[in-house]
Amino acid sequence: MKSDIEICRETRLTPIDRIALDAGIEAQDLTPQGSLKAKVKPAILKRLINKPEGKLILVTAITPTPLGEGKTVTTIGLAQGLAKIKRSVFACIRQPSMGPVFGIKGGAAGGGYSQVAPMEKLNLHLTGDIHAVTAAHNLAAAALDARLYHESRLGYDAFAAHTDLPALRIDINNISWKRVMDHNDRALRMITVGQNESGKTINGLERHDGFDISAASELMAILALATDLADMRQRIGKIVVAYNLDGDPVTTEDLNVAGAMAVTMCEAIEPTLMQTLEGVPTLIHAGPFANIAHGNSSIIADKIALKLSDFTVTEGGFGSDMGFEKACNIKAQQAQRGPDCAVVVATLRGLKANSGLYDFQPGQPLPDSIFEPDSAALSAGFENLRWHINNAAKYGVPVVVAINRFPQDTKQELEQLKQLILDTTFDIHVDVALSDAFSKGGDGAIELAHAVVNACKTPANFKPLYTLDQTIEEKLMAVAEIGYGAKNIELSPLATQQLAQLKAQGFNNLAICMAKTPLSITTDPHIKGAPTNFTVPVRELKLCAGAGFIYALCGNVMTMPGLPEKPAFMNLDLDENGNIIGLS
Amino acid sequence: MKSDIEICRETRLTPIDRIALDAGIEAQDLTPQGSLKAKVKPAILKRLINKPEGKLILVTAITPTPLGEGKTVTTIGLAQGLAKIKRSVFACIRQPSMGPVFGIKGGAAGGGYSQVAPMEKLNLHLTGDIHAVTAAHNLAAAALDARLYHESRLGYDAFAAHTDLPALRIDINNISWKRVMDHNDRALRMITVGQNESGKTINGLERHDGFDISAASELMAILALATDLADMRQRIGKIVVAYNLDGDPVTTEDLNVAGAMAVTMCEAIEPTLMQTLEGVPTLIHAGPFANIAHGNSSIIADKIALKLSDFTVTEGGFGSDMGFEKACNIKAQQAQRGPDCAVVVATLRGLKANSGLYDFQPGQPLPDSIFEPDSAALSAGFENLRWHINNAAKYGVPVVVAINRFPQDTKQELEQLKQLILDTTFDIHVDVALSDAFSKGGDGAIELAHAVVNACKTPANFKPLYTLDQTIEEKLMAVAEIGYGAKNIELSPLATQQLAQLKAQGFNNLAICMAKTPLSITTDPHIKGAPTNFTVPVRELKLCAGAGFIYALCGNVMTMPGLPEKPAFMNLDLDENGNIIGLS
Repeated sequence: MKSDIEICRETRLTPIDRIALDAGIEAQDLTPQGSLKAKVKPAILKRLINKPEGKLILVTAITPTPLGEGKTVTTIGLAQGLAKIKRSVFACIRQPSMGPVFGIKGGAAGGGYSQVAPMEKLNLHLTGDIHAVTAAHNLAAAALDARLYHESRLGYDAFAAHTDLPALRIDINNISWKRVMDHNDRALRMITVGQNESGKTINGLERHDGFDISAASELMAILALATDLADMRQRIGKIVVAYNLDGDPVTTEDLNVAGAMAVTMCEAIEPTLMQTLEGVPTLIHAGPFANIAHGNSSIIADKIALKLSDFTVTEGGFGSDMGFEKACNIKAQQAQRGPDCAVVVATLRGLKANSGLYDFQPGQPLPDSIFEPDSAALSAGFENLRWHINNAAKYGVPVVVAINRFPQDTKQELEQLKQLILDTTFDIHVDVALSDAFSKGGDGAIELAHAVVNACKTPANFKPLYTLDQTIEEKLMAVAEIGYGAKNIELSPLATQQLAQLKAQGFNNLAICMAKTPLSITTDPHIKGAPTNFTVPVRELKLCAGAGFIYALCGNVMTMPGLPEKPAFMNLDLDENGNIIGLS
Repeated sequence: MKSDIEICRETRLTPIDRIALDAGIEAQDLTPQGSLKAKVKPAILKRLINKPEGKLILVTAITPTPLGEGKTVTTIGLAQGLAKIKRSVFACIRQPSMGPVFGIKGGAAGGGYSQVAPMEKLNLHLTGDIHAVTAAHNLAAAALDARLYHESRLGYDAFAAHTDLPALRIDINNISWKRVMDHNDRALRMITVGQNESGKTINGLERHDGFDISAASELMAILALATDLADMRQRIGKIVVAYNLDGDPVTTEDLNVAGAMAVTMCEAIEPTLMQTLEGVPTLIHAGPFANIAHGNSSIIADKIALKLSDFTVTEGGFGSDMGFEKACNIKAQQAQRGPDCAVVVATLRGLKANSGLYDFQPGQPLPDSIFEPDSAALSAGFENLRWHINNAAKYGVPVVVAINRFPQDTKQELEQLKQLILDTTFDIHVDVALSDAFSKGGDGAIELAHAVVNACKTPANFKPLYTLDQTIEEKLMAVAEIGYGAKNIELSPLATQQLAQLKAQGFNNLAICMAKTPLSITTDPHIKGAPTNFTVPVRELKLCAGAGFIYALCGNVMTMPGLPEKPAFMNLDLDENGNIIGLS
């Protein structure tokens, strides 16, 4: 089969203004960026206010292998399948970070015949939104270090007198705002900034710091959760970047930098319209991490798509314990709109990996043995799929399992998996369909599309696991115990202390974002399948007052990936005609 | 008078595809980015190959005060003035860095009625070129630290066996590639990266590092000097990022990252078309520093503009000892095209500042006294202007002095300055004109436009001060002694050693880029006017093999600015309609 970029380049695409017009986006709402991508103005929502919303389909997955189970392929394929059966449809996906594109994972445009096109535009820069997030984030960091430096250099009173600004008296040992970069750059995880030569302090005050990848910026979560520009501006101003010497929060508003940050991001709030290889309109917007943030594309993009189509297909990061949970408990509560149907993507290899009998290493070839028929491993791994279906049921959302087929999969095992699903009783409508979206595009997802349409006939009965007015502990317990099925949560002494402080400072009414490994339902990446009777240890609580959640660090969460020995960037180049080669 | 952004917003602009068409850029050469900016494909040059080139006007200045003398206002104003007198004209300017926009200086779109519009687009993100430079630059840095880490972790032989790549054996103490960020961020000047907790080395190898502002990246110089995409790709591969344990250069090509860097920058090579407030087509492209790099907009933009118009007006950074010198000795030699006319911008306040009788602090209001008539100060300061006129004469380029008028300027002093110029004998055609471009737009630059047209009637006799085949010492001496009029150069022991190494490694045929203060013709910012009998101390020589020059550090050169106590970003915000306010 051809490479993703070859398939993409051979496809005749439709001018984006045509795609927009056919989708109901008028010229006044569109800012084309070249002929194949365009910014869509959120103001379109005012014009569409009286239009009813379509159905929201949220694609999730079993507990994934590090290589992923093909969730984006299925999202794009399903959207194409729905178009094939004459439904009006949008796909909404996240903007890929350049870190993984250059690192291990490669692009995030889907693949095969189910891609967003042109994939090289999607994977590189797109319309600059991640760059805007990076710039706004680092402006606040520069503002903070500059303020720290000038207040220290002049003294608090002299600073105040000289500038007519209050001295913020930032505690250099209590700064929560790091810097960000959209690369996998291990060496920037732990750094010391503000170093000086020979006793001078012209470069600022020396302190420990670090970079996260831009997708981990609170601004990325804000971009995904804001309902309009004014809301984004307000949220940015609420970001707590540090604490002062009295332990009180210091915000970007206190630094007088919130306005400039919002200015830096004022085009980023417009989703980018592209198309799939089969011309389905696709909105790309925001790309928050699915651990320390909620891992879903934006509320604004969803809202636009829901107004313009009968079906909006979107996806949450990792398995249903991660992006899907956060879509339901964080995003849906802020958007006041839950999903109508969950599509759980499963693969034979992924289920067998969840049997615990196989091991995966990112960047390494799969063991061939995993494609050999192994009925016992599949049955054991099915417990993981059953868990994820039941997880969706907890939120009142009907489920369609999409078996993402690989060329090596045997008919016998595909049939076995289908039967395992159909033989199980669930508390909710559950259906299953094979998906050949990778190799056949929308034609490979027609069965899936019909199953989704059918599932959506049941009126949705969505409910989140907690409401925002519950206490922080109650919300933590709701996700861990009801959501994951854990025995209990265990707060570290640090987390206990932070909990008290958050309450005292009035940050009780925020959502909870669990930052844990995606490779297990538990917080231990080595525990596969559908574990029970486990504890969720909460090491630290971190405030994202602008995004509207507190994230709970459970186990090690990497917010700045590293490059492997032989990164994906080594394959990239320009050919003699100036075309990009080696992108997958 | 209204603020810059108010004037800009009140002006009715022409759709950019209309501007393009009127300027001779066809739809196939244009990629609109919204309705007011568009990328122009360098492939247009193939179509225009047989068209004759127009005249190249290079705007420079006297030794500037830290606030600048209005060079961009004059550049845009002159372009508008030429259009008023029915000449076909393009302006070519650099893309502003966001650092100064948020820091002290504010925007760089010109000002008053001589601006590039929309100024908020120009000053923020534009079409993402600086972000692309930043991303490509930092990808190389991440690649370097990752290679260093993996080779160290596995051992050279095991690394080579595992990856099938040669071990590069990078000398951790001899790394020349820093990281970059497009902000004024003092705290990042000197940092330590790759730090680890408690004896582990999972975050890489600890070493000293630092960030420059993105405009100081060698990639920015490459973007400005490349003649096409293939040339850019080749230049990127030549960048020396470090030396190995034998002291041999390690390039981005050695890291297998040059291709991915070029891919990251493959849209950045297309200049961005905008318009002035009076509809003059303006190409914005690249923004290299004018000390450690050559400080001029791109060769590609100039080439396109020269083919499409009778007059191309561009500018070099700082005074004629800086951007103009580098335009003539670096850019013109690589482009094989020198300027036809130099416009030297002078202000009364700037000349008086050069008298040494006044002091300027950036960010501080000007002393009112500098606008009081002071014939003696003006006469003393005139020596600086005389120096800059004579400097242009050394390159065989005729000169028009543009007196950039401020509202407070008295007629008497303006007349005195004109007379001082007209009474002096020069070796070249010299003329003078008042410019009211700031307050009157093109109408305020008609006298200047006529003077420029007249100056261009003399056939150009351009010659650089050195040729690339001379030795590095000869080239250094040419700039210092012939160019600046210095007594001699003095190489530090370090520079002497580096000189020997550069020669041994075959880097002799590169241009020389003097990295010195812009605030004096000498290397000492406190020496004003037109000094003679001084020495140019060369502290260090740095190789930019991709850009094609060696830069000579003479005195302290700041490659990462800091934020002041009350930065410009504090004024920026969005109003209730989502419009940007507070940008100047």
